[in-house]
Amino acid sequence: MAVQQPPWSLPTQKSPEPTLKIYNSLTRTKTEFVPISGRHVKWYNCGPTVYDASHMGHARNYVTQDVLRRIMTDYFRYDVHFVMNITDIDDKIIIGARHKHLISTLRSQTTALSQALIDQVIDAWISYVQSKVGKGLPTADLPPAGSERAQWPQLVERFQDKEWRLQGLQKDEKFEMHYKAANVTYNALLAAEEHLKSGQTATEHAHALIDQAKDVLALTLDKQFGSTVSDHTIFRSLAAYWESEFFNDMRRLRVREPDTLTRVTEYVPEIVSFVEGIVKNGYGYEVDGSVYFDTRTFDKADDHSYAKLEPWSKGNRELLEEGEGALSATTGRRSAADFALWKASKPGEPSWPSPWGPGRPGWHIECSVMASAIFGENMDIHSGGIDLAFPHHDNEMAQSEAYHNCPAWVNYFIHTGHLHIEGLKMSKSLKNFITIDEILQKYTARQLRLAFLTQLWNAKVDFSESLMTGEVRGIEITFNNFFTTVKALVSQAEAEGPQLDGKNRFQQPERELTDSLHASQEAFRAALCDSFNTPEAINVLRELVSKTNVYLKTPGGNLEMGLVQRVARWVGDMLRMFGLGEGETAELGWGQERSASEGGVNREEVLMPYLRTLSSFRDGVRKLAMAKGESALKDILALSDKLRDTDLVPLGVALDDQEDGKALVKLVPPEELVKAREEKRALAEAKAARKAASAEAELQKRLAALEKGRVPPQELFRPPNVPAGTYGSWDDNGLPLTDGDGKELSKSANKKVQKEWTLQKKRHEDFLEWQKQEQQGA
Amino acid sequence: MAVQQPPWSLPTQKSPEPTLKIYNSLTRTKTEFVPISGRHVKWYNCGPTVYDASHMGHARNYVTQDVLRRIMTDYFRYDVHFVMNITDIDDKIIIGARHKHLISTLRSQTTALSQALIDQVIDAWISYVQSKVGKGLPTADLPPAGSERAQWPQLVERFQDKEWRLQGLQKDEKFEMHYKAANVTYNALLAAEEHLKSGQTATEHAHALIDQAKDVLALTLDKQFGSTVSDHTIFRSLAAYWESEFFNDMRRLRVREPDTLTRVTEYVPEIVSFVEGIVKNGYGYEVDGSVYFDTRTFDKADDHSYAKLEPWSKGNRELLEEGEGALSATTGRRSAADFALWKASKPGEPSWPSPWGPGRPGWHIECSVMASAIFGENMDIHSGGIDLAFPHHDNEMAQSEAYHNCPAWVNYFIHTGHLHIEGLKMSKSLKNFITIDEILQKYTARQLRLAFLTQLWNAKVDFSESLMTGEVRGIEITFNNFFTTVKALVSQAEAEGPQLDGKNRFQQPERELTDSLHASQEAFRAALCDSFNTPEAINVLRELVSKTNVYLKTPGGNLEMGLVQRVARWVGDMLRMFGLGEGETAELGWGQERSASEGGVNREEVLMPYLRTLSSFRDGVRKLAMAKGESALKDILALSDKLRDTDLVPLGVALDDQEDGKALVKLVPPEELVKAREEKRALAEAKAARKAASAEAELQKRLAALEKGRVPPQELFRPPNVPAGTYGSWDDNGLPLTDGDGKELSKSANKKVQKEWTLQKKRHEDFLEWQKQEQQGA
Repeated sequence: MAVQQPPWSLPTQKSPEPTLKIYNSLTRTKTEFVPISGRHVKWYNCGPTVYDASHMGHARNYVTQDVLRRIMTDYFRYDVHFVMNITDIDDKIIIGARHKHLISTLRSQTTALSQALIDQVIDAWISYVQSKVGKGLPTADLPPAGSERAQWPQLVERFQDKEWRLQGLQKDEKFEMHYKAANVTYNALLAAEEHLKSGQTATEHAHALIDQAKDVLALTLDKQFGSTVSDHTIFRSLAAYWESEFFNDMRRLRVREPDTLTRVTEYVPEIVSFVEGIVKNGYGYEVDGSVYFDTRTFDKADDHSYAKLEPWSKGNRELLEEGEGALSATTGRRSAADFALWKASKPGEPSWPSPWGPGRPGWHIECSVMASAIFGENMDIHSGGIDLAFPHHDNEMAQSEAYHNCPAWVNYFIHTGHLHIEGLKMSKSLKNFITIDEILQKYTARQLRLAFLTQLWNAKVDFSESLMTGEVRGIEITFNNFFTTVKALVSQAEAEGPQLDGKNRFQQPERELTDSLHASQEAFRAALCDSFNTPEAINVLRELVSKTNVYLKTPGGNLEMGLVQRVARWVGDMLRMFGLGEGETAELGWGQERSASEGGVNREEVLMPYLRTLSSFRDGVRKLAMAKGESALKDILALSDKLRDTDLVPLGVALDDQEDGKALVKLVPPEELVKAREEKRALAEAKAARKAASAEAELQKRLAALEKGRVPPQELFRPPNVPAGTYGSWDDNGLPLTDGDGKELSKSANKKVQKEWTLQKKRHEDFLEWQKQEQQGA
Repeated sequence: MAVQQPPWSLPTQKSPEPTLKIYNSLTRTKTEFVPISGRHVKWYNCGPTVYDASHMGHARNYVTQDVLRRIMTDYFRYDVHFVMNITDIDDKIIIGARHKHLISTLRSQTTALSQALIDQVIDAWISYVQSKVGKGLPTADLPPAGSERAQWPQLVERFQDKEWRLQGLQKDEKFEMHYKAANVTYNALLAAEEHLKSGQTATEHAHALIDQAKDVLALTLDKQFGSTVSDHTIFRSLAAYWESEFFNDMRRLRVREPDTLTRVTEYVPEIVSFVEGIVKNGYGYEVDGSVYFDTRTFDKADDHSYAKLEPWSKGNRELLEEGEGALSATTGRRSAADFALWKASKPGEPSWPSPWGPGRPGWHIECSVMASAIFGENMDIHSGGIDLAFPHHDNEMAQSEAYHNCPAWVNYFIHTGHLHIEGLKMSKSLKNFITIDEILQKYTARQLRLAFLTQLWNAKVDFSESLMTGEVRGIEITFNNFFTTVKALVSQAEAEGPQLDGKNRFQQPERELTDSLHASQEAFRAALCDSFNTPEAINVLRELVSKTNVYLKTPGGNLEMGLVQRVARWVGDMLRMFGLGEGETAELGWGQERSASEGGVNREEVLMPYLRTLSSFRDGVRKLAMAKGESALKDILALSDKLRDTDLVPLGVALDDQEDGKALVKLVPPEELVKAREEKRALAEAKAARKAASAEAELQKRLAALEKGRVPPQELFRPPNVPAGTYGSWDDNGLPLTDGDGKELSKSANKKVQKEWTLQKKRHEDFLEWQKQEQQGA
């Protein structure tokens, strides 16, 4: 018999690996995640309706979805197919596009300021104040309807009444917004009347009035001409603009693009046949060219259930109305809970052909149709903001299950939580409305992501100054300091020589740190398996960092830098996995924070500013050399100084000129260079000032000396240059012969005056020469 | 009762995800992989013995291990702890270090060529030929032992005998290697004798002899002085050098560094106590200061089994001897299968203190001890080359199980297959021995990795020219072309305007390609779960690429570039996962192949060459401007041309001078610029040559014209300038009056000669002027 290997048995796991559980809105519990097919995950995420700038609410929702998606793809390594839609047909888009188009038409047709234009704006203002600003206030407070123009003084008086304004603020949360629009228009009207009075009718004054009154004018114009707007491109171009802005914002937040993007305008034929299918299956009915979903029939069917997510919201009129949109028909439904699958389009609304006449899709149907077009009759995950749960997602599910005749169109419904700002719901009227562009002026994408990561994805986030400057900044600094320290120690160890010699022996501290790392890896996994508990996962990383910091301070320790690098690498990998940094996975740390617009390191982008500088310096030198002017060489030297002091400074390049004529080249942060340049300039100015001061002092001294020579030597010993009575008599040159008492001067006194006289003679000559020069100079 | 959500049930998987199975040398079958603790994987890989340059066998083994490790960490996302050892105590290292040390000592002590040195080499040569070259040949063929020097002529005669050499080649595979060493020494000896005869005794001649004879000399020197070598640093520095070379090679092959690196020299105290433990447990015994493992006692124990991997190799003497090393004691073992745990050190061998006297670790014990120091009493995976299975790995397991008293020290033993070169085992004597440095001159790391990836990790790889230039190159081109095409189409689509408009509607071709992608993702996972079947995984990627290429050729197709990008991104991600490329994961494709030394993009490294160029141009300009020489401006222009034509060309920067004086800056591959510059130069040279030729022609023409004026007009019509007898008589100016027959010239003939005469007069004046100038010029 041949020799056999001894038997082997499957290892028994001491601690089995945790399974992924996800908080599922369909059960309101954490349910085990089981994909339909292997590790392939079909995931549909509700995208934005593109009619305005994206704000903090969008940031919270899409960054959070991006984090969950990265965990699923990059950490759990599911093969995720992430689909997102763009809602580019919607009542808000229709109204916004019409307003924009009508204002721009009026503007292009107006070439001068006129009384007619002013009247048009006044009428619009009256109508706006009555319908918008006065909304919610007792009607008695407003002038009666009737001759519009006649109401103007009464309305203005009311409008300027402080009490009334206060009352309005308390009644209607949108009052302030409308009041502001009305006030801007009011002031523009006053200015326009002044201009007209003084005969200033130029186009610019007319356009200024239209621009400032546009919110007020748009409503009246839309009432008058809205129905004439029919060109699809008017609606599409507004949507396209805001879609592109949305993706710009997402890129800056490091939100990955969806794997597949779907747009409603591209799926209208599919939507029509999907609605037909629902009608055919008995769950839809037509009224006046619109098609509605029959919620009662669906809810009664054996295999179906309407409003699986929020059955308690079934009758909520406010939510339903908001879901239907401002341009929706309001009559003819079998039940108040029924919702539009297809809306007949009125004039001024875009329309597509259908068996029920020209119309457009209802809001909910698009997601059912596009998700079905990509995924077929079911999906693993559907996600969106919590405010979409009812009616949007419940209606989506009802439609799809009605069409496919299937019991469960979505297996896992996940909803991101609300966002509050400083404790309050974000709202334009509360002045706490922040766009993504605004917030990115203040914080980096990394900081915003950290703010969201430290909260549960399905909990409410209260975004506040103190969260950002306190906890978030603290976490960022912890990780930054850790990576900086490790990098410094690694490079120090490398500089000290063969890095690994005698530094690889695992002893107690190394074994403990290794155990901490492995325990952290396990706890990190457990946290993410526990319905993506990112706050806990971040905590695990922070605690590991603090344990490693303790190890780094081991007294007299022979640090095992390989182990420390391993810890830092894993921490960095996990932070990058959350989208907190870019750069290669193999890189230590989580990389430099780059400005969102920068993207990947591109050799060309890095080099070109420097090369353009090099080239334009050369251009300048050549031009001077070819011009051959007398001062060419001097100008070339000035250009060389300008290159050093002006052009290269903002690029972060320092040229230090050396005595041998070869400048030292250094890469230095531009701020430092600017600072150094300013210090140098300040120093030079101080030196120049000192020099000027000393020159002035010198001059004064010299003038004083010259001044001494003003008296001719002949007068030096006569009054008033000496007190009267000092001397008695003088010779022809004015030299004293006797003193005040008539006594002859002593020999020594004689000698002294003689000496002084000679000195004064020289001084007087100098004085005369100076006077002569001064006269010539003048 | 409150409204409740309808019931939800766990989805049933249509196709469950595959489980990972690994070919396990302990069963010789694919066994399901179950880690001991969660997803934490303890993995020990046998590292190199560092005494020589790494070769293709190392490349195959370590690249393959690296691929498996990347699959486990980056694809399956296990938390892997990858430990590798460096064997820096070993008989081969001891011998190599001693030889190197003794040769270098002899060299430094020798200052002149002498008869004594020559005699020393001759004696060494005789001994070498007898023991090495003659090995395996009938002893009768060699001169008898005895007076060494006297054997010289006989041995030389034998050495030069072709028949004998052929016989040697057939008997011993290492014959050629030894013969070559002996031959080099022989020639060096002849040269040295010549030098000595002619009195050239300079140090360089002595050193040349030692250098060329070093393989031969080392053996004799070692016999004489080997035992005097005792300084540990002599052994350690050889190991450190080759270790550093090994990691350089690994970096170039993109093999990741181990998480933890262990060196035998750093674990000797742990080894001593481990051996003590084995002895204490009754499985080890001491003989003459060495300690051996008692294989029979171990094999008989209830819970243990010796040679689990290759029980059939238990008695294989050849394998056992190789495992024990050249310096091992050969007597005193209880069984021939017993192996050394601890070797008593003889003089000339490094030693550490132990209870059994000074000694050093046996080969196998290090891995048991170091793996235990890091992992404790068991591990999930142990890997190494297949040639290590017996006795090394079997002995390791026996030792560890004897020490820990555990039944299974390793759960999964994985062995990489052999490497052959062009069908033959790689061997220095077969001249198919290739170092990693050599192979990287010929192929890139990516190509080598592809070669290994297209073979099963545990199969034999036959590395051949045809594999590399055929299959491997073909695969590389397929992927490269695919990424290039996709990138081009994406940038074209972007250039065409809003990229996504009307291009996101999934129709039949898009659904099919999406299905192909998902099927590929599933098949890829299945392949890797099937014991890391990388050839199949690569095939899956290739087939997906070819399906996508078909989609890209859809006639009249409105290509969904988002989908194509998604495919390309996944293919690129998977290729990078295998270590085939670097760069960010989010990047399309697998990135540029960089030279291994380059590493990550470093802003400073990229910029500095350009900035130095800029700065030195400025230096040059300033210097010229300050010198103020007459030609300064001309020199500055020349410098500007040099910047463009010489300095910036190798940096890949093109400056295209424009008429407005502002050069266009372009980044172009340097090769192209060099080519363009050479073409420009060739063109200029051709033009200059044409100009020179035309000037020469012009000169010749002018000379010919001047030459025509050599004859004075007075002589023009006289012989020999006209045939004798053309004219009969002439006037004073030499104008002919009559023709040869004495007849007066006709009026027209008269007019003609008159005209010619006038012309010649002018010509002759020009001629005289030229002659005058020529004389002045000379």
